[in-house]
Amino acid sequence: MSATDRTAGRSAGKTSGQVSGAGGAGPEAAEAAARPGVSRRRLLGTAGAAGAAGLVVGGGAGAAVATGTRDEPTALTTVGSAHVPFEGVHQAGIADPAQACGHLVAFDLKAGADRKAAAALLRRWSNAARDMTAADRPTTPAAYDDQVADDAGPSSLTVTFGFGRSFFTRTGLTSKLPTALAPLPDFPADRLDPKLSNGDLWVQIGADDALVAFHALRVLQKAAAGTATVRWQMNGFNRTPGATDRPRTARNLMGQIDGTNNPKPTDADFDKRIFVPATGSPDWMAGGSYAVVRRIRMLLDTWDRLSVAEQERVVGRRKSDGAPLSGGVETTPVQLDKINADRSLAIAGDAHIRLAAPASNSGAAMLRRAFSYHDGFGADGTPDAGLLFVAWQADPMTGFVPVQRKLDGADGLSRFLRHEASGLFAVPGGAGKGEYVGQRLLEG
Amino acid sequence: MSATDRTAGRSAGKTSGQVSGAGGAGPEAAEAAARPGVSRRRLLGTAGAAGAAGLVVGGGAGAAVATGTRDEPTALTTVGSAHVPFEGVHQAGIADPAQACGHLVAFDLKAGADRKAAAALLRRWSNAARDMTAADRPTTPAAYDDQVADDAGPSSLTVTFGFGRSFFTRTGLTSKLPTALAPLPDFPADRLDPKLSNGDLWVQIGADDALVAFHALRVLQKAAAGTATVRWQMNGFNRTPGATDRPRTARNLMGQIDGTNNPKPTDADFDKRIFVPATGSPDWMAGGSYAVVRRIRMLLDTWDRLSVAEQERVVGRRKSDGAPLSGGVETTPVQLDKINADRSLAIAGDAHIRLAAPASNSGAAMLRRAFSYHDGFGADGTPDAGLLFVAWQADPMTGFVPVQRKLDGADGLSRFLRHEASGLFAVPGGAGKGEYVGQRLLEG
Repeated sequence: MSATDRTAGRSAGKTSGQVSGAGGAGPEAAEAAARPGVSRRRLLGTAGAAGAAGLVVGGGAGAAVATGTRDEPTALTTVGSAHVPFEGVHQAGIADPAQACGHLVAFDLKAGADRKAAAALLRRWSNAARDMTAADRPTTPAAYDDQVADDAGPSSLTVTFGFGRSFFTRTGLTSKLPTALAPLPDFPADRLDPKLSNGDLWVQIGADDALVAFHALRVLQKAAAGTATVRWQMNGFNRTPGATDRPRTARNLMGQIDGTNNPKPTDADFDKRIFVPATGSPDWMAGGSYAVVRRIRMLLDTWDRLSVAEQERVVGRRKSDGAPLSGGVETTPVQLDKINADRSLAIAGDAHIRLAAPASNSGAAMLRRAFSYHDGFGADGTPDAGLLFVAWQADPMTGFVPVQRKLDGADGLSRFLRHEASGLFAVPGGAGKGEYVGQRLLEG
Repeated sequence: MSATDRTAGRSAGKTSGQVSGAGGAGPEAAEAAARPGVSRRRLLGTAGAAGAAGLVVGGGAGAAVATGTRDEPTALTTVGSAHVPFEGVHQAGIADPAQACGHLVAFDLKAGADRKAAAALLRRWSNAARDMTAADRPTTPAAYDDQVADDAGPSSLTVTFGFGRSFFTRTGLTSKLPTALAPLPDFPADRLDPKLSNGDLWVQIGADDALVAFHALRVLQKAAAGTATVRWQMNGFNRTPGATDRPRTARNLMGQIDGTNNPKPTDADFDKRIFVPATGSPDWMAGGSYAVVRRIRMLLDTWDRLSVAEQERVVGRRKSDGAPLSGGVETTPVQLDKINADRSLAIAGDAHIRLAAPASNSGAAMLRRAFSYHDGFGADGTPDAGLLFVAWQADPMTGFVPVQRKLDGADGLSRFLRHEASGLFAVPGGAGKGEYVGQRLLEG
């Protein structure tokens, strides 16, 4: 995955921060184009010595290095050097591709932590996230830094911050509570664990390297000390960059290709669907989005008892390549009214893609950006595995809520799923230079 | 990480199976050399069309594909196509580099499962592992295959099988029990959870893609149905290939570079230290090894309270680059008798690398091939994280046991570690063509 790919989704021209990757003219640019993911600065610094011979393996080995400082930076390969700017109109971790490793974590404010303490926490968190996601990390580690991520580059690290409904009560900010942050309705099939649901603050961390992701999680957890404690935390994963060249969409743990019909950053109405407009309400949410988080356990032992043909009927897509059963290839639009030769519906009446289709939900759409999870096996031998579903939209009432109302119980797929945790978080716009995320809420 | 790198450690010339990667002469070979990890067969199949233009993105999109079969294979990038042969004198997953994703899992035989049932299970497991690790997977998925790993290549998948001491009693094979499989001694500082320790059978799975690793775990778990059930299972991780170009050694979750002094496959005495000789005892263990597995929790909150200088004194190495405090770079041999200008020992008396050094343990050495783990946070906010330590040796009595006897309690580092689970497993030699792992034990 190249830096160019990684940042392509972030509303080109709107990000205020640095943008890595290929561009410009001249031989360096040509080389950069051939090696996406190597940052311009790094390239310019090494191109003279290396020419077109390939990546430079830098000189740490013989260098005298003082205690506690890093080696001379070495040239990184594409995975390590890919970076997603922290600053921008929108926060990172929404429109850019989901990474190989993810952590979702909710925090509750400690008793007595007020708006001022929360503001200080968000500033600490934003500063740490800005440092950790930078293309070139500082030579001397910060005081908070346990050095677990040393040697690797940012590895497409993103850190995304959100506020739960309870945050506003705890900090006396109820006048700023967005209407869109109303509690999600009860869905009859839900089996939610309140201890794994909701929370005052929510952080989504993603990176293509597991140590980089863990390091970010740990740094932010330690930075919360005295102000907030972990309420719940979940580990997730996706395919490693380079393990497949299949474009864009991923397989989930049911073996199905997932996310085909996602809104795409190149769609004309993408921003409108996913992000709160600059003129939106409340004003501190301009450029923000709402994240619906669901831990969806997959009942894999039950699922695996179906034949592939039965599984495909449940979903409405071919398992091998994601093509809709109405014909074509993965990207072919679904024909919901297509009739087979035997007069049956090509896409069954209760097929997942029929009930989830925007055409079945007054055009409702959300950007699903999920991680798979696997937390071992239960006492009965069934895997505790499934999807850490994260859906992004400008308003849950025109995104997740109507779709889930339709799916809940009626969806053929719902027999094989169990929603075990839920959260809804207001994710403000991105920070500008010198700002912290949420500043317009906390100081506005 | 190239296929060539991946297989370099496996006693060149001894593996009986296929070896992927670059080699030979002519333009294809030159291209292969420039693109390590793309298998010869795949290369030869696409080179005509692609020339030197780069990887071919194959033609799945327009192809008519029958239900339940796979797309036409697409060209894979280096991570996906890298493969480690399943067959060989030794099992895979020992001398080859540890992958980004790992699962350790122990099974217990069900009541009534006898030697014959165990033999059938090992045959099923070996056949599935042979299929899943192959450079080119079959076009039509096997009946056991949930297709979760579709699209990706083998991604350096290895599957390694071992036998615990209890296996021999349960199957009436006590006459074949190796002396070296004597229970590990009690170490006073151990805090072992018996439910997470030992087991009749042990499987180590590693891959550079999380879905490939999960798929293998799930396939093997399902293949055990009726014969064995999961006793315990642990998820681990290492750096993603390409996240850093630092050679060979990795950082652990304490932020320290770990594994510098590991025996290397190029060492003259590597095989002698790690593998049971062909003339060894018992004969069914020829080419095998013994795996010591320890879940070592790191008390990270305590550790992080030390300054970097204090952490370095505890370990005996510089945190930034792993250089010993006696001077030089990471690979410089440690000088245990070096005295600082202030007359103190450069490597402290209780420093980890002093107590663990072969020179302090009559030359005892083992090959550490570990994964980090992180299973969330405890109720007190401390991370449940550390090292899934797997150590390989020809005999634990000249490997792990004397070293751990010295470290236990006395090692400065032991104040920050807690051994929470333990296992010792006899890992037989690799399977030849048509064989299954353990066949010489179970049918000998």
